[in-house]
Amino acid sequence: MELKNDLLIRTAMGEAVERPPVWLMRQAGRILPQYRALRGKLSGFKELVETPALAAEVTIQPVDELGVDAAIIFSDILVIPEAMGLPYELIEKKGPLFPKTIQTATDIEQLQSGAKAATELHYVYEAIKITKQELNGRVPLIGFAGAPWTIFAYMIEGSGSKTFSKAKRFLYQHPDLAHQLLQKITDSTIAYLHKKVDSGVNLLQIFDSWAGILTPELYRTFALPYTQQIANAIKRVPLTVFAKGAWFALADIASIECNVIGLDWQTSPQYARQFVDKVFQGNLDPCQLYGQADEVKQATLSMLESFGGQHIANLGHGVYPDTPLDNVKVFVDTVKSVVYQPDHQAIKS
Amino acid sequence: MELKNDLLIRTAMGEAVERPPVWLMRQAGRILPQYRALRGKLSGFKELVETPALAAEVTIQPVDELGVDAAIIFSDILVIPEAMGLPYELIEKKGPLFPKTIQTATDIEQLQSGAKAATELHYVYEAIKITKQELNGRVPLIGFAGAPWTIFAYMIEGSGSKTFSKAKRFLYQHPDLAHQLLQKITDSTIAYLHKKVDSGVNLLQIFDSWAGILTPELYRTFALPYTQQIANAIKRVPLTVFAKGAWFALADIASIECNVIGLDWQTSPQYARQFVDKVFQGNLDPCQLYGQADEVKQATLSMLESFGGQHIANLGHGVYPDTPLDNVKVFVDTVKSVVYQPDHQAIKS
Repeated sequence: MELKNDLLIRTAMGEAVERPPVWLMRQAGRILPQYRALRGKLSGFKELVETPALAAEVTIQPVDELGVDAAIIFSDILVIPEAMGLPYELIEKKGPLFPKTIQTATDIEQLQSGAKAATELHYVYEAIKITKQELNGRVPLIGFAGAPWTIFAYMIEGSGSKTFSKAKRFLYQHPDLAHQLLQKITDSTIAYLHKKVDSGVNLLQIFDSWAGILTPELYRTFALPYTQQIANAIKRVPLTVFAKGAWFALADIASIECNVIGLDWQTSPQYARQFVDKVFQGNLDPCQLYGQADEVKQATLSMLESFGGQHIANLGHGVYPDTPLDNVKVFVDTVKSVVYQPDHQAIKS
Repeated sequence: MELKNDLLIRTAMGEAVERPPVWLMRQAGRILPQYRALRGKLSGFKELVETPALAAEVTIQPVDELGVDAAIIFSDILVIPEAMGLPYELIEKKGPLFPKTIQTATDIEQLQSGAKAATELHYVYEAIKITKQELNGRVPLIGFAGAPWTIFAYMIEGSGSKTFSKAKRFLYQHPDLAHQLLQKITDSTIAYLHKKVDSGVNLLQIFDSWAGILTPELYRTFALPYTQQIANAIKRVPLTVFAKGAWFALADIASIECNVIGLDWQTSPQYARQFVDKVFQGNLDPCQLYGQADEVKQATLSMLESFGGQHIANLGHGVYPDTPLDNVKVFVDTVKSVVYQPDHQAIKS
């Protein structure tokens, strides 16, 4: 099916475009009244993730409500550990919890991986197919996965953490086992992403949410090679890598064969451009959307200007659940109001 | 009283020294069996902080047990909000909690500040006097406070947080009130640190633990000016500023009139040296101490080499409570085993 709005894809491929495309990480979620109404009727977050028709419905809500240039399939990065044999729960207001965690070589051996793990996630592929049908080519659909290091961190730590010191301790104490587990996660993720592309996603994004707590050396040893494997394995659609907080590893990240690099709100495009010759995505501070509408507009324009071209407009992190919807719309509408000048750098609003 | 070991002070003042001094953030704490034994007999963490003889005892424990080149007074950065009228609790394994938080202009008006707030903290000054007496000049004693932004973040948010989105929202929505509160915190902190120096501390450190979640612009507007005020007000002893995660603000931080800049484990001295012409403190990854003893030794030597001279050896964050004591000793002993060459750069072990 041909895309009526392929701005995201053309931008990701490095083509000169008329204006930056815009979407928001976590755009399908609590910022939308439609989402909250549906979610209130269900037993929990996982029911939404695992019911394809409902996942498709909330995936499309922000396209209708906000007019963004892309949909992102409603799901969670933690479906991969679950498919490998490590189920997770999502505790309201606390975050993810794994009743069982990975501690030993036997724990790792017992995990299934690759195509076998990926097959478990039939509900994701089904949700993608329904979404594609219902979107009917209006905008591209983004698929995603966690980066192997981030998935590893949850599987060892068992929950979120400020330091992820248990996961990092495992890297220092059991580097060989760590590589075994990271490889199994990588194999599963590659198989999973291939099936997502088979089902119809138009672009993939890898979230390395906890890259920022590694050292440059740990990133190079335990994170980079596995994200690189994924990038090398999946060339069928454009790929975005977002390693949050990993400013210190940008020179390494630049070597990954992907199309787009996500930037957080601390990392200016000027800083990142020293290392990276790819399209950027980001990077407004999500808290900026708590400000007055005219401040949101000004900050969005400044951000667009700081990137110039080769840019997919987004926040520097997922939108926070209590963000005023009107300000989200100001953000989206401001991006959509600009026009690139012919030199593809300056912006005219 | 003359210091028998003034290596830390001479290094902080920029003098050429024979080897780097070494201490660890959170060295007085759960890594020490002596601390755990004493803590087990008490009702809670705050009893320890508020009982001068006990605070002095745990302050000195790491000097005896580890042979570090400095003691740091056992206390908490949250005594300042409490002295201003906002009491805190420390929930075991969860962290700080403020039953009441700051929400309105009236809340801010009702806070006491400056000398009046500082007077409340008599137990800290008493603990410093006892510690100085008992240390008898063996090593310098470090005093500390939270940076105004970090204290502000806890007073608004009411607890730790991954995003501190409530505190940041307050900056965007109520910038004038935010400046009022930050000024009150700053005034209290300056009065507090003067009294700490009066009581005998030999060096001061400002912990800006949550600087890293700001944008460069927010750091410049709401963090930098207040830390700068403190630095300008207190010139009687050397000052260290540790703004964790604030790599993006190093050029601003470099303008603060302090002696030492703390670096986290993501920030290499090579990167920081581009912006900062001061003594550095840091920056081994605290999780490195989970490794094998010989790896700890090698990593410590590499770190020392990467800094060359003008360096106070430390971790890039507080030592984690479950760190093996033997590895902490390897870290300390490795630093103490090196000798600077006459050019004050290369290291001979």
